[in-house]
Amino acid sequence: MVDPASHPALELDERVHQKTRLALLTVLDEAGRADFPYLKKLLGLTDGNLGRHLEALAEQSLVEIQKGHEGRRPRTWAAITPQGRTALAAEMNVLAELVQRFRSTRGEHP
Amino acid sequence: MVDPASHPALELDERVHQKTRLALLTVLDEAGRADFPYLKKLLGLTDGNLGRHLEALAEQSLVEIQKGHEGRRPRTWAAITPQGRTALAAEMNVLAELVQRFRSTRGEHP
Repeated sequence: MVDPASHPALELDERVHQKTRLALLTVLDEAGRADFPYLKKLLGLTDGNLGRHLEALAEQSLVEIQKGHEGRRPRTWAAITPQGRTALAAEMNVLAELVQRFRSTRGEHP
Repeated sequence: MVDPASHPALELDERVHQKTRLALLTVLDEAGRADFPYLKKLLGLTDGNLGRHLEALAEQSLVEIQKGHEGRRPRTWAAITPQGRTALAAEMNVLAELVQRFRSTRGEHP
């Protein structure tokens, strides 16, 4: 059966786990920062959806919104923070543990 | 930068990905089926929370609710369906890909 004390799914971080937030953080972990049109296009998000999830991540200090200009055009970037990198790495460790546990269970009881 | 066409986070299955549902499905994948008090205790859920997520999973045919008796005592189990096992395995493949991509990106740009 199942060992209650150690089930890795219990350790998933809800600040990070939601699909769109996990997608945003993994992209920003790769790119460092990215502007809004790029993120919208990459992840197929509406303005509202992107804004809502970035705001939630910024409230938790996991991303930072940066405003600036490129030439005369105003641009807005989202950048991952050190806390964001730490939270994402922790989530990835839990996901890796979940996958490993899933695969070993399937292997034992196919 | 990032290759839009292949980002694995886009393939996460929202029917399965939410933390409590992923926890329930992984437990049921290991145990086959489990009764409500066991799931509540294992995952630290309220009756309402457990019921709501099991109902959502049952609506998608990913779990099946089974009612029966043990001696004279009525019991209710949740059991994972073949569709549930398939959806969970697909989700685990995406998670494994995400973890692998995360780790290789970190390795290249520490």
